[in-house]
Amino acid sequence: MSSSVVTEQVSLAVSTVVFALRPHPRTGETTLWLPLVRRIREPYEGRWALPGGPLKAHQDLAASARETLADTTGLEPAHLEQLYSFGAVDRSPADRVVSIVYWALVRPDEDARTTETPNVEWFVADEVPQLAFDHNEIVRHALDRLRAKITYSPIALAFVPDEFTLAELRGVHEAVLGRCLDPANFRRQVLAGGTVEPTGTHLTGTSHRPPALYRAAPREQEKSR
Amino acid sequence: MSSSVVTEQVSLAVSTVVFALRPHPRTGETTLWLPLVRRIREPYEGRWALPGGPLKAHQDLAASARETLADTTGLEPAHLEQLYSFGAVDRSPADRVVSIVYWALVRPDEDARTTETPNVEWFVADEVPQLAFDHNEIVRHALDRLRAKITYSPIALAFVPDEFTLAELRGVHEAVLGRCLDPANFRRQVLAGGTVEPTGTHLTGTSHRPPALYRAAPREQEKSR
Repeated sequence: MSSSVVTEQVSLAVSTVVFALRPHPRTGETTLWLPLVRRIREPYEGRWALPGGPLKAHQDLAASARETLADTTGLEPAHLEQLYSFGAVDRSPADRVVSIVYWALVRPDEDARTTETPNVEWFVADEVPQLAFDHNEIVRHALDRLRAKITYSPIALAFVPDEFTLAELRGVHEAVLGRCLDPANFRRQVLAGGTVEPTGTHLTGTSHRPPALYRAAPREQEKSR
Repeated sequence: MSSSVVTEQVSLAVSTVVFALRPHPRTGETTLWLPLVRRIREPYEGRWALPGGPLKAHQDLAASARETLADTTGLEPAHLEQLYSFGAVDRSPADRVVSIVYWALVRPDEDARTTETPNVEWFVADEVPQLAFDHNEIVRHALDRLRAKITYSPIALAFVPDEFTLAELRGVHEAVLGRCLDPANFRRQVLAGGTVEPTGTHLTGTSHRPPALYRAAPREQEKSR
């Protein structure tokens, strides 16, 4: 090495785990999906990886995450927050890269705007193949965080439209947790939590007893951290 | 610029917010303190800042945080976890620096081993002066996280010795939250949470009704994330 100034080089990348709810291809039950990008160069050429790229010097962290997402999937999810930074010395075989990882939650109306892009494919989150780098660990970390956070925060609201029924909201919880919840208990807990409120209207055109519609309560929102 | 290769330079630093519980200098009530380091070069020469430094290429993120802490304060806290990464484009006046921030919680026995170091001083966490860079925002973020997390996780256990009374544990909650808690309610909630268990012994040499001692329950620990 010709200069001691540049020997301590660390590169910085921003990647994103994007979760959307879609039917499972075999069971048909709603479950978590995420988009992956096929790598077209070494290391790990041909492997699937999280959407991401090097941080540009003029770009904020979240802006970098948003740009990659828009470029690869066409998605512009309202809910984007920082997950964790991964920096193990040996996580990339070629160089030292620290990845700051964001996670995004996609509403059905946002998901409908997903664009088809070559080398991008959606996978069931619990069934991803062997990924590049430590990206399996990152996906696992994001799933753990989501499944923990849904039990103590109103984060499930990021998966529903502005107005929703309690059955829809319960469906989100069930899809994320992968198990059924008792409707009466769920209803009681959600209403006691104070994070949703009735709109005063009902779902139209369904049954003779149309379910009430709810919206997020106008309180201090969960900070996007 | 002579080369397009090096124009997108981003530097990476690791800093740590260290919380310990000590008596407030005016009220005497137990409250949160943190150590700060006086900057001895520009930018912000003379201002106080969080302990930290550039990430070395051969060093993991947490190892970098631990090294700086040991060098500045002599502390080797058992509880160290990643807080957040701060990367606003303009957070450093001279260059582009992304700081990955850890936070550490210090037990009384660990705090007793704090070493005196020139240019390091401890401050009441809610009364820090104007700091260098965006470090006031980082301290605020860490305080918010700690005060939120103590309400839904057993993180208070990181501030007590291996064996403790419920009054000691309540004192930690009160010091962190800055308000009094009802002893009977607190006792009921903690015991219902299942995160502590009685040791079967009592505090000795105190009163005619010595309080029972507790320890962390041997369950899956809160992951250090």
